[in-house]
Amino acid sequence: MSANREDRVDFVVNAAGRRVPTIVNGQPARPYAGVGAPAPDGPKHGPPIRSAADYPENGDKRVPDLKTALERCGLRDGMTISTHHHLRNGDRIAVAALQAAAELGARDLRWLPSASFPCHEPVVDLMESGVVHHIEGSMNGPLGAYCSHGHMRGLGVLRSHGGRWQAIQDGEVHVDIAVIAAPTADPFGNADGSHGPSACGSLGFALADSIYADHVIVVTDNTVPFPCVPWQIQGNNVDFVVEVDSIGDPAKIVSGTTRITRSPDRLLIAEYVARFLRDAGIMRDGFSFQAGAGGIALAFVGYIRQMMIDAGVKARFVRGGSTSYLVDLLNEGLTDYILDGQTFDLAGVRSIGEDSRHLPTSPFTSYNYHGKGNFASMVDAVVLGATEVDVNFNANVVTHSDGMLLHGIGGWQNCLFSRCTILALPSFRDRIPVILDEVTTLTGPGERVDGIVTERGVAVNPRRTDLLEALEASDLPIRPIEEIKAEVELLVGGPPAKPRLEDEPVAVIKWVDGTVIDTVWKVPQPTESG
Amino acid sequence: MSANREDRVDFVVNAAGRRVPTIVNGQPARPYAGVGAPAPDGPKHGPPIRSAADYPENGDKRVPDLKTALERCGLRDGMTISTHHHLRNGDRIAVAALQAAAELGARDLRWLPSASFPCHEPVVDLMESGVVHHIEGSMNGPLGAYCSHGHMRGLGVLRSHGGRWQAIQDGEVHVDIAVIAAPTADPFGNADGSHGPSACGSLGFALADSIYADHVIVVTDNTVPFPCVPWQIQGNNVDFVVEVDSIGDPAKIVSGTTRITRSPDRLLIAEYVARFLRDAGIMRDGFSFQAGAGGIALAFVGYIRQMMIDAGVKARFVRGGSTSYLVDLLNEGLTDYILDGQTFDLAGVRSIGEDSRHLPTSPFTSYNYHGKGNFASMVDAVVLGATEVDVNFNANVVTHSDGMLLHGIGGWQNCLFSRCTILALPSFRDRIPVILDEVTTLTGPGERVDGIVTERGVAVNPRRTDLLEALEASDLPIRPIEEIKAEVELLVGGPPAKPRLEDEPVAVIKWVDGTVIDTVWKVPQPTESG
Repeated sequence: MSANREDRVDFVVNAAGRRVPTIVNGQPARPYAGVGAPAPDGPKHGPPIRSAADYPENGDKRVPDLKTALERCGLRDGMTISTHHHLRNGDRIAVAALQAAAELGARDLRWLPSASFPCHEPVVDLMESGVVHHIEGSMNGPLGAYCSHGHMRGLGVLRSHGGRWQAIQDGEVHVDIAVIAAPTADPFGNADGSHGPSACGSLGFALADSIYADHVIVVTDNTVPFPCVPWQIQGNNVDFVVEVDSIGDPAKIVSGTTRITRSPDRLLIAEYVARFLRDAGIMRDGFSFQAGAGGIALAFVGYIRQMMIDAGVKARFVRGGSTSYLVDLLNEGLTDYILDGQTFDLAGVRSIGEDSRHLPTSPFTSYNYHGKGNFASMVDAVVLGATEVDVNFNANVVTHSDGMLLHGIGGWQNCLFSRCTILALPSFRDRIPVILDEVTTLTGPGERVDGIVTERGVAVNPRRTDLLEALEASDLPIRPIEEIKAEVELLVGGPPAKPRLEDEPVAVIKWVDGTVIDTVWKVPQPTESG
Repeated sequence: MSANREDRVDFVVNAAGRRVPTIVNGQPARPYAGVGAPAPDGPKHGPPIRSAADYPENGDKRVPDLKTALERCGLRDGMTISTHHHLRNGDRIAVAALQAAAELGARDLRWLPSASFPCHEPVVDLMESGVVHHIEGSMNGPLGAYCSHGHMRGLGVLRSHGGRWQAIQDGEVHVDIAVIAAPTADPFGNADGSHGPSACGSLGFALADSIYADHVIVVTDNTVPFPCVPWQIQGNNVDFVVEVDSIGDPAKIVSGTTRITRSPDRLLIAEYVARFLRDAGIMRDGFSFQAGAGGIALAFVGYIRQMMIDAGVKARFVRGGSTSYLVDLLNEGLTDYILDGQTFDLAGVRSIGEDSRHLPTSPFTSYNYHGKGNFASMVDAVVLGATEVDVNFNANVVTHSDGMLLHGIGGWQNCLFSRCTILALPSFRDRIPVILDEVTTLTGPGERVDGIVTERGVAVNPRRTDLLEALEASDLPIRPIEEIKAEVELLVGGPPAKPRLEDEPVAVIKWVDGTVIDTVWKVPQPTESG
């Protein structure tokens, strides 16, 4: 099946020098204008005023099934249905909702997941059959390939977690029906993720949907009598509650354990990052950091933990993706709080359900750039990954060097606003260098990247003279990025070949403020390219 | 000083048969159209989109004083400044904010408190000098008298707690600057009321203001490092933080103890109410009730507590105004949860700060009629007061029988949506009968009042045949309301004289959906009436 997108639109070169479309899926799109460009004038989106007179006085909003709920929400062709990704690869509700819409005869839907996973592969069939028009959200695995090869009828739109909040809040994306899978809920629609057989921790990614969507459906496999305590999703925003046997596969919702890398190179990278924070004076009493659940990030937490103990230093807060490693810091008194955006393992779920110092956050508190500030810029240091970086510290997290769209942005762009952003990555993968002259897809501008830490050395952004000065006495291998790049190229036999891409956009990458920072181009299918 | 209101406007007779203005303070006003009338089409208010680029990256939003904050919010003549009443008669911030505005030369402000108290008497001077144009919020004591005698330049607008949320949410009241006094806050503006030297419990009444106002100022006397945990007000909605020595007088913010009535008549009323709940089968396992902090309500809690113990019955939740009496129920295992709208005494403040089963709520969760339902209609029984009732169960809570505006509505109107609404009141006060042919000011329609309990008997609304049936075997003195009325009139020498009121409106009473249910008329000053 070939692509069947709308008429071609004009392109402009944005402030990052990237060619981006001015119309995306029929709507005007603002090109990226630089970090800190002014927000558009105008009000936030106002969802429809409702009346309690139209909802059951006894608070019982239960209907028999998803199909009934979608019907009563007035499902129509072309609507936007949103879901969240807290159940990760164990999610059963997003596909069930779209399939229920298919059974009702709906077509040309826009699916707005907060992220998608391999378990969502059946959406490919729904796109083939015309039920789903296109996806706005991260696409990896089969969905990423489907989009990359130009099969999707609309353009993919990738947003950061904060950018998704911004887009919904600003009215750039109008959500008609939000479907919220909830590990615990009451018949009124109050819902929470920290308890129940399918517990997944915070439900923060579904919060914008619950506030701004026209219609909200909560789906649960664990109904409790009103009130569901705590409630992160407020029943006052919910239209219908659907009870199902299971919202997901608990084994795939959270992992029993997340594991530190065993690769010596990656352990070295993790250690360099911890030493960077210590030697630059960032690791001091009351400091804060954010590290995700990747192998390097987890190893980093182990190193910084020991350095904190050795120095008698305590953090004010740490941010996750929470894991047992962050929970240990909390229990050992090495941090006052965990501010949790997403709960990754069983220890994290238990902790957020039981410990009032382990708080759920949302993309609003943490990341939304069109708020009155957000938490991200108050974090002293953040440790992130990337698929590619360039000599100007620009970075890519969404495509591989072959141009294939295989990762979402997550909170990555939002975290760049930390006081010290460190990209921790191996200098090459599968003999392909990671440091390039120019990244395949620009996801984050170099001016917000402060350090790149590889097993071959640590490159500090020359803009950060303060960090370079602070690190003068450090025995870290601080090196110019060009030098590391040259060394890797010597090792693997030169810079990588540029991917062969067609001049046809398949997706756009939004910056935190809703502007288009780059375009993802069609990758010819192996059969097409011979 | 005489009244100087805008040109007279037309009046209509609303669905309750009351004469109400069609224009209120220059804006069209919808007349009351009955309980459950449809909500207006249209979106909720969208506050301006902001950009994090315009707020300090380090999250420190502190400015030296209220004047600076107001200036930087762009204070102009005619703006609306909102405050909340959690500090009750100990509040120092509302007057300080309006006086700071006066020093900046502002005029014709609309003050939108969630309630006012005698400590706000200095606002009379600010109205006299032209700084404040009029008040929309409860007015009692000197402010009530000022309004009642026709001295305010605009019409007073009295809203229930839920109606205030509805009005702000629906854009009926545009809040330019919200000033939120916070017992604890961090420099980013996250704020909470349950800790600190001026702790007052939940800050729920300031929540709508924080979400919908153009500009939000948090004023605190207890700054903690980010993050302020818990945060009920989100810093992401806050523009500026002002530190002051003291936001209020702790002794007047919460009372050390609230006291049960000692009047034998009122104790009898309280006992009748508890027996009503028991005998009607409302007091059963998993039930819920709401009772405020008045003397009769507190006594009722004592009686129902004993009946619950005797019957081995446990509540699912109780709602306050929380007091030590409700906290005792929680600690004795007689209720699973306290859903707290407002914290009235020190025991309540301690409990909400320490016990995760004691939850802060907001007018959004509890009362907003223009939401997808609210908690109020899920409460099995509520015990309320009234200044007057009529033979059709209509009730008044805002004026006295002399027509003087002396009370706010509070959550009273919203609570009428409980499954069983009981007005508990003495049959006469100061030899003036409380049951009349027609109330002076209609605040709540009789169709939402289920029982009137006096020391002379219990009247059940004839519409509630189910309750009358359920109570058939009860030994409560169930009597027709007309009979109780006649008995009281016999006792005190006839029905009370109608108050002498002028044909000039001084305030309007809004129903929960923003419509005008009644008008408050000017009361001649004693000197004028001779």
